Amino acid sequence: MTHSDAIRLFAKTLRNLEHWMDKAAAHAKAKSFEVDVLAHARLAPDQFDFVRQVQAGCDQAKYAAAYLAGKPPPSHPDTEQTFAELRERVQKCLAFLETLEAKDFAGAEERKVSPPWLDGKWLRGDDYLAHVALPNFFFHATMAYAILRHNGVDLGKMDYIGSIPAQGG
Amino acid sequence: MTHSDAIRLFAKTLRNLEHWMDKAAAHAKAKSFEVDVLAHARLAPDQFDFVRQVQAGCDQAKYAAAYLAGKPPPSHPDTEQTFAELRERVQKCLAFLETLEAKDFAGAEERKVSPPWLDGKWLRGDDYLAHVALPNFFFHATMAYAILRHNGVDLGKMDYIGSIPAQGG
Repeated sequence: MTHSDAIRLFAKTLRNLEHWMDKAAAHAKAKSFEVDVLAHARLAPDQFDFVRQVQAGCDQAKYAAAYLAGKPPPSHPDTEQTFAELRERVQKCLAFLETLEAKDFAGAEERKVSPPWLDGKWLRGDDYLAHVALPNFFFHATMAYAILRHNGVDLGKMDYIGSIPAQGG
Repeated sequence: MTHSDAIRLFAKTLRNLEHWMDKAAAHAKAKSFEVDVLAHARLAPDQFDFVRQVQAGCDQAKYAAAYLAGKPPPSHPDTEQTFAELRERVQKCLAFLETLEAKDFAGAEERKVSPPWLDGKWLRGDDYLAHVALPNFFFHATMAYAILRHNGVDLGKMDYIGSIPAQGG
């Protein structure tokens, strides 16, 4: 799987997340509560709420794309409080991902990635993708999904996966 | 990221899962309850419980490894009910993954993968990895983690991620 494919997988999953938020809004409407109640729902008192899960998922995608393509990551301050604002955050993230082309990721496997939290150490691009970006991105995406699911939103596995490019048959 | 690297990432995460189960056992002991109560915990009444999440995570890893290497998947019936049995299931899965070497995945990108649930259609190996195996594997691993976290087990993000091959510094 190329690094460009990985970033496109993140983008696809963020678009799936927008669909989960649509279903959350429909659920809130059917149950006559404000959907933004779910923005601050969480699975454990000391764990990120839905807002922070979405922000963190976007950031995992954004930083992976920037680091692996050797581009500066745009600044997206964590100011969102509502579903409407989170949708804008997802859109900003997707807009950045879409600026990158497959050729920007040439040589990404061996690129030295040195995020601030590694305190001067670095990871090979391939190791950053496998050990940091992929598990962290899907962690936050799944937690966002889990918070909605736990609160009764009508989500199933195919909402999580989205479309699959099956051929033949 | 090679397909062999992806399978090794799944194996690493399954070993992290064993560590989450250790922490669950310690939590149960500290709180004087049977850890197997958590085996049947779930986040929503119509969602898989912990046992099914672990079984499904193992299966995503096992089938990805088998399909992408062109080997027959071993049969691992879903009979587990306890943490002790789930540990054996994880060990069986890891033992299978370890039979495969990097060379077994040569050409996996273009291999036609046609699991029974695709009803005769197929996916390119690379598409199977990106659209099925990676998101599904991390979905079930994260849900298993989330169920424990929701029930008070002392888990943090680094338990989820495990060791990172940082260099230099």
